[in-house]
Parts: sequence; C-alpha cells; structure tokens
Amino acid sequence: MTSPSAIQDSYPYQNEPIWSRSEKTIARKAFDAALGRELHEVIQETQKMASQIQHSSDLWDLEHYLTQRRKEIDSKYDYRYSRLTHVFGKLLYQNRLGEEDLRGLREDKLNSIRSVAQFLAKYAA
Amino acid sequence: MTSPSAIQDSYPYQNEPIWSRSEKTIARKAFDAALGRELHEVIQETQKMASQIQHSSDLWDLEHYLTQRRKEIDSKYDYRYSRLTHVFGKLLYQNRLGEEDLRGLREDKLNSIRSVAQFLAKYAA
Repeated sequence: MTSPSAIQDSYPYQNEPIWSRSEKTIARKAFDAALGRELHEVIQETQKMASQIQHSSDLWDLEHYLTQRRKEIDSKYDYRYSRLTHVFGKLLYQNRLGEEDLRGLREDKLNSIRSVAQFLAKYAA
Repeated sequence: MTSPSAIQDSYPYQNEPIWSRSEKTIARKAFDAALGRELHEVIQETQKMASQIQHSSDLWDLEHYLTQRRKEIDSKYDYRYSRLTHVFGKLLYQNRLGEEDLRGLREDKLNSIRSVAQFLAKYAA
C-alpha cells in the first residue's frame, strides 16, 4: 500500500516554491543587477591593485585575489529556481540587493528570503 | 668485479660542472637580471590588460594569464647549479639574456649553454 508520504517522497521538488512568469522576470533582473554590481567592484579593485604593482609578490597577490573572487562569485550566483531563495537571502544579508529589488515576489518567498538573511546575520554575529 | 662505469654510476653528479666563486657571482647576476626583466614585462602586460578590462571575461583572462606566467616563471628560473646550464641555454634561446651577460664563465660551460640554446632553436623550427 502506498502511503501519501511515500508518494510525496517520490517528488522531491514538489515543496519548492513555484516561480510565476512575472516573478521569474523580477528574479532575473535582481540577480543580474547584483551580479553586475559585484563584477564591477572586482573590475575596479583589479584595476586599483594592478596600478599599484611594484614587486612580483603584488602580481601573485592579484592572481590570488582574482581566483578567490571567481570561485566565490561562481558559487554564490547560482540561478536555479531551487536555489534562488538562498541566493537572494545571502545577497540581502550582504547588502548586495535591497528588498526593493525583490518587490513583486510573493510574500511567502520574501519571508523565506528574509529568513535566510536573518539566519546568516545571526550566524555571523 | 666492479667496472669503472659502475663506479661512475654511483656518483650521479660527478660529471656536473663545478662553479667557481667568480662564476657563481656572474651566474647569479645574469639570472637575477633576466628574471627581473621578465617580471617587469609581466607587470607591464598585467597593467595593460587591467586597464582594458570591460567584461567579466577580461577579468578571468587576466587571472589565467597570471597563473600561466607564474607557473612558467617558477619552472624556468631554477637556480640549482645542476640546472643552470639548461636554464641559461633556454634564456639565451629566448633572447632573455645575451652572451655578454655570461662573460667570465668557463668556455666549457658557455659551450654547453650554447648547445642547449641551439638544440631548442632546432627543436622549435
């Protein structure tokens, strides 16, 4: 006999929030804007570090900085709908986007995103 | 019975050239000067690439360039006396130093260095 919970387990993603077409548009815009701002920061910092290079150690410091930032950005900006709540929560916590960027998302999603941000703030404290 | 060649094999480094004190001074100076010039080129190229960054792909191209150059320089500039003939031969082949930088080394060393440079030139052709 198949219990309701067994059926539920066979659809692992059914509890994930569904993103409507208009929410997907808002999410994509907020995501791209935050990523664009972060990349702009990396470009500015890279140009600053490059202009101040005097010794070979400064070269390898710049290489290390770029490697770290690339890995961090690759890991943080994960545009899968199953991950977006977490992604936006982290960006909110890091002040890389504001609630105004997410206006138009359903309240349950906004609450989940705020929860992630609050958890990360507590965890860091 | 131990043959002369077996004795020779038990001292793997005995055929390596001995570097006199004055040759070591010349070698160190030539080595450091070539390394300094190469690092200076990398610094200039890095600053040029950084100043032209427009897209994120330019950032990761710069990171890749730095990683490649660091590995290449680490591998090429190997200041062990057992490796110096090869190191100088390669630098001579790449026009990163001239014979004038090596003036004062014994003729047998100069010949070995020229041989390495000629071998690399033939190999590349």
